[in-house]
Amino acid sequence: MVDIYRSRCGATSELRERHDPIIYGRWNPQAPLTQRQVEFYERNGYLILKNVFIDDEVKRLQEEAQSLIADPAAMNQDTIITESGGNEVRSIFAIHQQNTLFARLAADQRLAGIARFLLDDIPYIHQSRLNYKPGFAGKEFYWHSDFETWHVEDGMPQMRALSMSVLLADNNENNGPLLLIPGSHASYITCVGETPEEHYRTSLRKQEYGVPDCDSLRHLASMHGIEAMTGEAGTVVMFDCNIMHGSNSNITPFPRSNAFFVYNACSNALVEPFGPKTQRPAFVADRSFEPLCIVDGTLTE
Amino acid sequence: MVDIYRSRCGATSELRERHDPIIYGRWNPQAPLTQRQVEFYERNGYLILKNVFIDDEVKRLQEEAQSLIADPAAMNQDTIITESGGNEVRSIFAIHQQNTLFARLAADQRLAGIARFLLDDIPYIHQSRLNYKPGFAGKEFYWHSDFETWHVEDGMPQMRALSMSVLLADNNENNGPLLLIPGSHASYITCVGETPEEHYRTSLRKQEYGVPDCDSLRHLASMHGIEAMTGEAGTVVMFDCNIMHGSNSNITPFPRSNAFFVYNACSNALVEPFGPKTQRPAFVADRSFEPLCIVDGTLTE
Repeated sequence: MVDIYRSRCGATSELRERHDPIIYGRWNPQAPLTQRQVEFYERNGYLILKNVFIDDEVKRLQEEAQSLIADPAAMNQDTIITESGGNEVRSIFAIHQQNTLFARLAADQRLAGIARFLLDDIPYIHQSRLNYKPGFAGKEFYWHSDFETWHVEDGMPQMRALSMSVLLADNNENNGPLLLIPGSHASYITCVGETPEEHYRTSLRKQEYGVPDCDSLRHLASMHGIEAMTGEAGTVVMFDCNIMHGSNSNITPFPRSNAFFVYNACSNALVEPFGPKTQRPAFVADRSFEPLCIVDGTLTE
Repeated sequence: MVDIYRSRCGATSELRERHDPIIYGRWNPQAPLTQRQVEFYERNGYLILKNVFIDDEVKRLQEEAQSLIADPAAMNQDTIITESGGNEVRSIFAIHQQNTLFARLAADQRLAGIARFLLDDIPYIHQSRLNYKPGFAGKEFYWHSDFETWHVEDGMPQMRALSMSVLLADNNENNGPLLLIPGSHASYITCVGETPEEHYRTSLRKQEYGVPDCDSLRHLASMHGIEAMTGEAGTVVMFDCNIMHGSNSNITPFPRSNAFFVYNACSNALVEPFGPKTQRPAFVADRSFEPLCIVDGTLTE
């Protein structure tokens, strides 16, 4: 397979073209998004959907998340990622495989239905996690395109995937919200430096390879600006697999948590990684490619 | 002298009363602030003044700041503070003693005149600095009350001082702006732990003592919220010496810089430190107590 998204091979970074569509589905009145929402997503690479879940659903998800984070020993230990330089839980991976409520959430029509429309294909969950950015001590996470990593380290062939973050706490400008560069999904920045073996062990906490260069970031941010993905608990933030994003630290007392799902098109299932030959573990990049069985109704039924 | 603001002595933190006024001057129509501004400052402990300096003045200050940061070797080396874990200049202290333009700025009627009114006394510069928070790599700075440190480590007797930050770059929500808890200036949080000798050598980069406890911060932030001090270059942010403040990291490409002056009332000049016996150096806590000679007019005259 020709690698149209080569990265971490050259001595310099390059800003290249994206070769894939952003929207695969064709809008029609039955689509799960309005035409305006689809156009916004295509142009900006993200969309914020407010009040997707009702209060009782949000409460149930929050309680479930709290109980999981309070007892990490009950989970598969490989899937627990702690803060860089600390012991606080930052993320629990493969959450949809370890918990029935989060499995149900991943398959929900209000998330998976939109993914199916935008990807114009049955989606599967490439990666899922419960993210927890603690108050006082939440660390920053540097700019990156998820696709660059998924392509190089996991062998995702094309840009036909997207992420959905269900906010489980109020995210405002001050508690380290997701920052992204609108429109950056339409370019592809190649990164410098070879990937070390077993990179995922450190990169889930602090990324050091697959990091875009300062000139490209300055160019993109000056051209497009930077937007903070803020909203109340229950808000859904969805964004393209190739959008440039990161987050600042969180010194506020207010933790920031979300449930995070990556939907990949079944037709875009992983092949051999384009970078290092060792595959990352299944909890980071699933290879069962199980088509999602989309479920209607609310989470409290 | 009885220490009414004892701190770093007990095993637990305490939220105590402030014993000093916030506004010392009495408002009158000749005051350099409107009555509404004075009331806002008294209640919230801060005030943002827009368009204080005209474009030409801002440009001149920016150029001067750039040239100083570009050639730190020309300055007193003790006054140069680099980023924690890096070599980038974070601050240059005693800037009003090393540069005529910044000396002129410190004495400007639009800053010093307001300080004189609020403190109801001739002010002197307790500390000054040029702050530079680099893009991509600007680190967070944890919550603290300046007064707690100035009292314990420098011997500032009472809360009769204030800070003014002249923004030299656009500060928005995303590039690590100053965060403060409005209203927190009306309480005094005592901190735990004795101060090590020569604490200033590390504390100017990363504070580890004189740090308030999580419960008090949670209480204050839940009660009052958190405000980001944003504004365009040329904006002046002024705040009480005892307000709780800090800042998150800055992963954006956009650096954040400001000129920072602490005005203390001459009648509130430093005595022996209330904590460790060794005095901090003059570039951090000046002991010449030279009354400011306030200057009218613009910086470009």
